[in-house]
Amino acid sequence: MKPLAASLGDPAGIGPELLAEAWARREAERLPPFFAVGGARVLAAAAASRGLDVPVRTISDPAEAAACFASALPVLGDLDGVFTPGTPDRAGAALALASLAEAARLAVAGRAGGVVTGPIAKARLAEVGFTHPGQTEFVAEACGVAADKAVMLLAGPNLKTVPVTVHEALARVPASLSAELIHAKCAITAAALRRDFGLAAPRLAVAALNPHAGEDGRFGDEEARIIEPALARLRTEGIDATGPHPADALFAPHAREHYDVAICMYHDQALIPLKALDFDAGVNMTLGLPIVRTSPDHGTAFAIAGKGAARPGATIAAIRMAGECAARRASAA
Amino acid sequence: MKPLAASLGDPAGIGPELLAEAWARREAERLPPFFAVGGARVLAAAAASRGLDVPVRTISDPAEAAACFASALPVLGDLDGVFTPGTPDRAGAALALASLAEAARLAVAGRAGGVVTGPIAKARLAEVGFTHPGQTEFVAEACGVAADKAVMLLAGPNLKTVPVTVHEALARVPASLSAELIHAKCAITAAALRRDFGLAAPRLAVAALNPHAGEDGRFGDEEARIIEPALARLRTEGIDATGPHPADALFAPHAREHYDVAICMYHDQALIPLKALDFDAGVNMTLGLPIVRTSPDHGTAFAIAGKGAARPGATIAAIRMAGECAARRASAA
Repeated sequence: MKPLAASLGDPAGIGPELLAEAWARREAERLPPFFAVGGARVLAAAAASRGLDVPVRTISDPAEAAACFASALPVLGDLDGVFTPGTPDRAGAALALASLAEAARLAVAGRAGGVVTGPIAKARLAEVGFTHPGQTEFVAEACGVAADKAVMLLAGPNLKTVPVTVHEALARVPASLSAELIHAKCAITAAALRRDFGLAAPRLAVAALNPHAGEDGRFGDEEARIIEPALARLRTEGIDATGPHPADALFAPHAREHYDVAICMYHDQALIPLKALDFDAGVNMTLGLPIVRTSPDHGTAFAIAGKGAARPGATIAAIRMAGECAARRASAA
Repeated sequence: MKPLAASLGDPAGIGPELLAEAWARREAERLPPFFAVGGARVLAAAAASRGLDVPVRTISDPAEAAACFASALPVLGDLDGVFTPGTPDRAGAALALASLAEAARLAVAGRAGGVVTGPIAKARLAEVGFTHPGQTEFVAEACGVAADKAVMLLAGPNLKTVPVTVHEALARVPASLSAELIHAKCAITAAALRRDFGLAAPRLAVAALNPHAGEDGRFGDEEARIIEPALARLRTEGIDATGPHPADALFAPHAREHYDVAICMYHDQALIPLKALDFDAGVNMTLGLPIVRTSPDHGTAFAIAGKGAARPGATIAAIRMAGECAARRASAA
């Protein structure tokens, strides 16, 4: 497996310091080799802000990363700058965008095992030409995959969830759902759990939209009208998909034992249980792409950047998950 | 404080066996005195099904309960019957309804310290004349309180939540919300946390409706249009209410340290985190009533009734919470 490419995220946020922290913990956490795309000075300063001894080694080719990873944090190329933690600016947004674009390009070209993207501030990147709703769509386009074929998986130690709709007003969620959409998200998810997580027969639990799954239509009919037809089609295709399950009970400890991923109808249905259970270790992975892409499931946290307070669990989990999925793809190839 | 009145719930469900189990654990769990309303034979059979040694003592007045509670499970009156666990029938539904009505009546009359209601099957009770949406509305009416002034609190060891809307289809939730409704639920909740939980200045965290709290109106405007006006009014009344908070982060461990209760916009927003975190110990308490009323936050579970598999944590927690709240009211009176 080739080393992973890690984009910096906004250099005024917590992305760089958490990459430095992850490298410092590479042995204890048994992390696969990775390199940062740009930011040699950013990373050195970020490591110093946490009191970490992290030697930075500039490399000119991803192939050099594996050899030096044991002794230094490899940094590819000369994208760089000097930034103030907690004070984002246009130059920092431009660096974040360039680092992301190059990391994705290297993975698509097969020169990196996958990409781990650091946290960006979307509104700031938009000011320097970023036209996508988020990094997921950006990476999908870099892969030549339509955005609606890229599926967001949120994964923690205790739970995996997929939101069928994402950044929609709650009032628009019911009309945004269709049996076709649910079927498509489930089919991509099932294929990805087989390929990337080694699950021979992944078990999908599909959440209901309405309380108590609508109680036989008393509080809404989307379960019978939209979700059940999607489930029926999935089953004819041999996919182990159950539901619609009342969402309130679906995330209780004993319920979680019965599925590998919960398919959720809207953003907060997927994110509330994940963050309640796995707040510091959530990974956002994009399924359905020709490359492996993960990201820590948190933002830039400008308010705590440079203060040594940001917790590295999600970044470490994102690197580990990307490495495991990339290794599985490499051994299957 | 007077003993608590416990209704049986459906005799074919898990309610009676959990009352027997709670009595058996009364010393280890330091439970306050309570009596069952009816069901001497039901309770004896339920105790036997769990292998418990629970002597049942029939009493004719609630005042007799305290004296015998240490040595026997007190059962008031002669409502009773013989039922098969897991096989509900009309006679059982009639017993459940009679037990509930009498328990509420005794609490309203001041002859019981409060009422702990066992789980019923609403559809079955409807067949024998129960015309309310649920026990909450039934108990409110018994108290002479309008149903919309009774507020459902869901409480576990790690979290308390209040759903502003309850049994509404998700598509109807946005239109069901208003600043007036949110204000009223919050004001009742704040008063109840002072009176029943002894919190001098309860901290309410109000959840947003839309993902990321709508991101400044990009995904919905209910935060600015409905929730913020309610919050402004609460603050002018001296109530510590914050928000609207993005719901996905509100239930993470560090976020939960900053509030006493989360006010949620819909059923699953309130129930998903509660059941994910506190599945076996959730209590449903009705706020805003002249009497104390709690209930274990689970159903009849006909499928496991009589098999010794039902877990008693929620029933024990409901009895303890009712006792604590009733004692606080008694000492303040």
